Amino acid sequence: MENRRRGYECAPWELRWRGLAVSELHRTESTFALSNGHIGMRGTLEEGEPRGLPGTYLNGFYESHGLPYAEAGYGYPEAGQTVVNVTDGKIIRLLVQDEPLDMRYGEAGHHERVLDFRAGTLRRTTDWTSPTGRTVRVRTERLVSFTQRAVAAIRYEVEPLDGDLQLVVQSDLLANEPIETQTGDPRVAAALEAPLVAEYGVAEELRAVLVHHTARSGLRMAAAMDHEIVAPDGLRTGITAEDDLARLTVAVDVPLGERLCITKFLGYGWSAQRSAPALRAQVDAALAGAQQTGWHGLLAEQRAFLDQFWASADVEIDGDPELQQAVRFALFHVLQAGVRGESRAIPGKGLTGPGYDGHAFWDTEAFVLPPLTYTVPPAARDALRWRHSTLDKARDRARQLGLRGAAFPWRSINGAECSAYWPAGTAAFHVNAAIADAVVRYVNATRDTEFEARYGTEILLETARLWCSLGHHDKHGGFRIDGVTGPDEYSAVVDNNVYTNLMARRNLREAANACERHQDVAEAYGVDDTEIAGWREAADKMAVPYDALLRVHPQAESFTRHAEWDFANTPPHHYPLLLNYPYFDLYRRQVVKQADLVLALHVCGDSFTPEEKARDFAYYEARTVRDSSLSAGTQAVVAAEVGHLDLAYDYLAEAALTDLHDLHSNVRNGLHMASLAGAWIATVAGFGGMRDHGGKLTFAPRIPSELDRIAFRMCFRDTSFEVEVRPGEARYTLLSGPPLELAHHGSRFTLGAEPVTLPVPPPPALPRPAQPPGRAPARRRAMEVRRRVRTA
Amino acid sequence: MENRRRGYECAPWELRWRGLAVSELHRTESTFALSNGHIGMRGTLEEGEPRGLPGTYLNGFYESHGLPYAEAGYGYPEAGQTVVNVTDGKIIRLLVQDEPLDMRYGEAGHHERVLDFRAGTLRRTTDWTSPTGRTVRVRTERLVSFTQRAVAAIRYEVEPLDGDLQLVVQSDLLANEPIETQTGDPRVAAALEAPLVAEYGVAEELRAVLVHHTARSGLRMAAAMDHEIVAPDGLRTGITAEDDLARLTVAVDVPLGERLCITKFLGYGWSAQRSAPALRAQVDAALAGAQQTGWHGLLAEQRAFLDQFWASADVEIDGDPELQQAVRFALFHVLQAGVRGESRAIPGKGLTGPGYDGHAFWDTEAFVLPPLTYTVPPAARDALRWRHSTLDKARDRARQLGLRGAAFPWRSINGAECSAYWPAGTAAFHVNAAIADAVVRYVNATRDTEFEARYGTEILLETARLWCSLGHHDKHGGFRIDGVTGPDEYSAVVDNNVYTNLMARRNLREAANACERHQDVAEAYGVDDTEIAGWREAADKMAVPYDALLRVHPQAESFTRHAEWDFANTPPHHYPLLLNYPYFDLYRRQVVKQADLVLALHVCGDSFTPEEKARDFAYYEARTVRDSSLSAGTQAVVAAEVGHLDLAYDYLAEAALTDLHDLHSNVRNGLHMASLAGAWIATVAGFGGMRDHGGKLTFAPRIPSELDRIAFRMCFRDTSFEVEVRPGEARYTLLSGPPLELAHHGSRFTLGAEPVTLPVPPPPALPRPAQPPGRAPARRRAMEVRRRVRTA
Repeated sequence: MENRRRGYECAPWELRWRGLAVSELHRTESTFALSNGHIGMRGTLEEGEPRGLPGTYLNGFYESHGLPYAEAGYGYPEAGQTVVNVTDGKIIRLLVQDEPLDMRYGEAGHHERVLDFRAGTLRRTTDWTSPTGRTVRVRTERLVSFTQRAVAAIRYEVEPLDGDLQLVVQSDLLANEPIETQTGDPRVAAALEAPLVAEYGVAEELRAVLVHHTARSGLRMAAAMDHEIVAPDGLRTGITAEDDLARLTVAVDVPLGERLCITKFLGYGWSAQRSAPALRAQVDAALAGAQQTGWHGLLAEQRAFLDQFWASADVEIDGDPELQQAVRFALFHVLQAGVRGESRAIPGKGLTGPGYDGHAFWDTEAFVLPPLTYTVPPAARDALRWRHSTLDKARDRARQLGLRGAAFPWRSINGAECSAYWPAGTAAFHVNAAIADAVVRYVNATRDTEFEARYGTEILLETARLWCSLGHHDKHGGFRIDGVTGPDEYSAVVDNNVYTNLMARRNLREAANACERHQDVAEAYGVDDTEIAGWREAADKMAVPYDALLRVHPQAESFTRHAEWDFANTPPHHYPLLLNYPYFDLYRRQVVKQADLVLALHVCGDSFTPEEKARDFAYYEARTVRDSSLSAGTQAVVAAEVGHLDLAYDYLAEAALTDLHDLHSNVRNGLHMASLAGAWIATVAGFGGMRDHGGKLTFAPRIPSELDRIAFRMCFRDTSFEVEVRPGEARYTLLSGPPLELAHHGSRFTLGAEPVTLPVPPPPALPRPAQPPGRAPARRRAMEVRRRVRTA
Repeated sequence: MENRRRGYECAPWELRWRGLAVSELHRTESTFALSNGHIGMRGTLEEGEPRGLPGTYLNGFYESHGLPYAEAGYGYPEAGQTVVNVTDGKIIRLLVQDEPLDMRYGEAGHHERVLDFRAGTLRRTTDWTSPTGRTVRVRTERLVSFTQRAVAAIRYEVEPLDGDLQLVVQSDLLANEPIETQTGDPRVAAALEAPLVAEYGVAEELRAVLVHHTARSGLRMAAAMDHEIVAPDGLRTGITAEDDLARLTVAVDVPLGERLCITKFLGYGWSAQRSAPALRAQVDAALAGAQQTGWHGLLAEQRAFLDQFWASADVEIDGDPELQQAVRFALFHVLQAGVRGESRAIPGKGLTGPGYDGHAFWDTEAFVLPPLTYTVPPAARDALRWRHSTLDKARDRARQLGLRGAAFPWRSINGAECSAYWPAGTAAFHVNAAIADAVVRYVNATRDTEFEARYGTEILLETARLWCSLGHHDKHGGFRIDGVTGPDEYSAVVDNNVYTNLMARRNLREAANACERHQDVAEAYGVDDTEIAGWREAADKMAVPYDALLRVHPQAESFTRHAEWDFANTPPHHYPLLLNYPYFDLYRRQVVKQADLVLALHVCGDSFTPEEKARDFAYYEARTVRDSSLSAGTQAVVAAEVGHLDLAYDYLAEAALTDLHDLHSNVRNGLHMASLAGAWIATVAGFGGMRDHGGKLTFAPRIPSELDRIAFRMCFRDTSFEVEVRPGEARYTLLSGPPLELAHHGSRFTLGAEPVTLPVPPPPALPRPAQPPGRAPARRRAMEVRRRVRTA
């Protein structure tokens, strides 16, 4: 079975994998991860082994370690932060007549795992015959609750299939699980080898609590478990707690035809402040709530929550079932990553793996927040409140860098800069503009003026101050922002990166607007009319380089004068280039890791003419290698706008399938949240042509010939609506709320109770742009996909 | 005494320090260091303590250690190299009637150390009264032989001053001396804590040998000592050898009026290949030679060697005795650093301390080799042969970087790149042009065509290939060299650095010329006419940016559009800026650490008009902070050429006194060889106006009003000559060799047997350029100096 059929089965509302595939566990543990943004649990088997990389995470819970530099410099961060694999409550081991259930031994007649996008659970069914010939069926279902954020639960059910059996179940809380770390630095490895220091443990009846703290970062966490057991007569239980292990042992003889069913409730909490008793009380209370709701109650809440989500956020893609599944998978994980973070970051990998040390990047605001803003706006608000809560650290960082305002970190868990390579870290100041832009988008989309007054304006004014002090008015004319790094990480420390400058310009103007709207806030932070005038002056004079000879925008000043990359002599196995070529060579050539000027064409599309967009897009297509997962979604958007619908389709598929097809060979470390979000962006901003420039919502929908229909739902202010696009026409339907001003291919209209159907003009006929040899996206042929899916 | 008179006494031919000054030992150990370029010994007291930082070095002998990176990248060097403090043979301890001589106890009625520039020795005289009241006079003299490169020797003489005394002398070879290391990386510290692994030790009679090897780099070294003792009757000696210690113990009763005199001969050798017995044989042989010559013979050879050196290399400065001393001190140390390196590097600190891990940089070719080329040309040749010997490593490095030809390391001991911060390391490709330029200078100065054929041409052609592959012909016109770092380390990874491009242009043309002269060499390395034509084409099209609005050359493209540094708000204690401001901020502003465009004005002065030089110099003066010791000498040269003679004088003094006045507060780690060499350059190329563009030797002498006369001697081809400059006139005198074509202020003349006296035109009247506030060089007022020296 293992070798007969590998991979995920195609279905619209779930992700299913049949068979064990030990070597694929690393990646399926990531795709099958459950999370609510506060607790994350990788999709490991209950029995703990075989395993890829076990992982249980609490958002914001990290350990510190020194950052080593062979040549240090002023302002280099001294402390790194790494997400900690916290006390593992997923583990439930089974002894079948004294033989431990271990799928590497015996035989699994049937084994499958299913991630259900509507139920919000991971289900497993395993029929296992032990080496001595006893067969059991194990069914498990687990959830990390969307409605009770400190709670997870597992239903574990065992049934003898061929005779009476003695079963022993051990349900664990296990701290300091040994895991591989990939660091080369002995100090980092030491910090992470056993990061949790035991502080307190108690066990009685079916309940246990373990409290630990980290040695350096000084954070404290508690994990608690309680159980409900339904079993035949003769059940014996025992419970113990040691420093790093609490264990409930359940032993019972189960006759054929009967079952042992254990429900394990888990409560998690952490704090930098609260005492061990206070944390214990917190997780005990979480458990009490969960048990009050009960397993079926938790399941029902979970489904209701998701029903509501899909009702206002679903994306339908007719004509490509695999893409349909992938886009829902993407939305489900974006929701999981962000929905209950509540003033914590949304890490680059969500809570699905230890990749990037669990750090959050600009990915959050630039890619993950747009879909959340238009589908679950409170989640976007909470993520921005996290940024706001780190403002003091960002102000300190700006001061340390000799700048005014606030400089948000390139990568961080707690808000302090953790980037150890400043040219592709601290110098990437565009993160600040992305945060400001996300604030503006959220406020425009929700009219949440309270948020704007309490949080948003402060972020805007402090980032505006940053840009003002980072740039300068040049004698030669123009306001320049020199020596910064744009989104493309194959360039660094450049002058006048077009994306950065356009985003900074918007940041400056929006800060001025917000301060004028909230004069009390402006006053509280010492912003006066002169300062606001300075922002507008800088914005008006902002340098935007243009290459008049080539008639394209250089990504940054001089970019188009740099040498071309020698693609013809770059073999396929030399991608990603950064693993095979030195930075100095990448930086000085016209080779682009990820959309940069093309991202500007999307996000700052109101600063380019259609002709410029077409020429610029073609120019950068030929030089963009997509060694980053942050690229395909954006390329899809601009390809669609310019008129390359088939190319947009290919890029959408690449973005949506990044993790399911493990395109970057690193899904083991967690999912690529920005790429998953990029699938939504590619659909809605690409084929839907959705733009929100200046706070106005506009559409220019068009679908490729391979697809029959796409439809998506979103919210804007108090209105929820659906856009359906078919060949030749689009239909806008209001789902709830007041009428809404929209635009369709440049024509304004009001969407009221009556659906509006409008014709879709054909795209301009343009030659398909070329990508570097071997770097074109896989051609997506929906007919072939459909055939493959049918015969699978 | 300690506090009454601190500092060096002024004298034309020696450096003397009276008193102990424990807190100054760190730096006086550096200034009093002896070296012949092969062996280096810091000026520690014989008794080992008190001490600053003991150090004995063998050129090229290093230990390897891992280089840590919190974020690694392709092509980053994995192994660092650090100079090893080898077996210390300087130690001679004394017991005076059972009281160890330790100058921190008892009383030193007299104590002085003298570095003698003509004798080539370090002498010490100490009258010491022990805590129990016994007084001895200790006189020592030591040398590291210029004539026998594996040999050092110490004469140690003790004399009772107030009665008969029992004296015990212990003469040691001590390996793995505990020293402080300043690294923050535990792995580096571990590698250096006890770097020497004992392999072999033997002691008999008055002779001992210790052989050690390094654990990681696999280098092996031997140190041997032998002794000659002159003493009163009743001498007892004993000798032992342990792993890390060989010790001769000498005990004798010395009556008042008599002396104990011990001559210690030291032999050193190291090899990556030879066995322990072979190395032992080598140092035994060295000792045999030294003893055959004897102490007085070694002294006589040393003096004869130096007499010859000063006869052809002396620099006289009349009117400023301190500067006179400093310039001779500088020349003496430059000689020590380079004279017997013999195919080893000349490190940035010579062999005077562990600074920069003992690495060699471009300093060697750009600053240290010009004076050696014109005074001790074989030393320049040998240093270039070292570069040549590392060509395979440089070719490997170029290949790793995706380049053709050879990429010499930014910093190294063995030729492999050790720079852990590539923007100010590997990206500083200009090191290759400096090496090529040094080859051309040496060949022009010596007509050593054999060197050119065997070594020089290969270096030139491989560096030309590097430039050709590093740059590219741009559609917009010009041959560009993008993404490199010029000399100024407050900018990095820039396009078309003017200095780099001009030097690369010269490199390309000189490689073409050399290949045409040595067609067999060219053929052997596959250089054909097409390739040579390509070099000339690149050279002819070389981009040299110019700012037409400001009418100055930008240091690199766009430099003059960058923001100015806020000097007004930079407090004095924030220099050097790199310790107080982040690189990103330094890089994006018009603040210059060290001469860069101004270095081009000197070295590539044939590419600028006089008016351009004056304007460019004034522009960069206002923006150059001289946080590097590589700057003042060059600024002196261009200041003198442009006509700012007083300013040139100030800069010359700064360069010459960098170490004696410890201007950078780091002399403890070793002397700044490039700055010492810069003192010669400032005198000869500055006030002498010496240039060697195109292989022609020209002068444009002029001295500041504060000085009465300067005179310097140098060699060119087979001619040795002197240039004397007085107010209003210069006199050229041939010392030996055939007549020579020279030029004086633009007029050619032939220097034959008759001295030639020519008038010196007055400098143009220009306003003295301003430096950044607080960064002007100290005004040198010779009259005040003379007064101070007289009254001292």
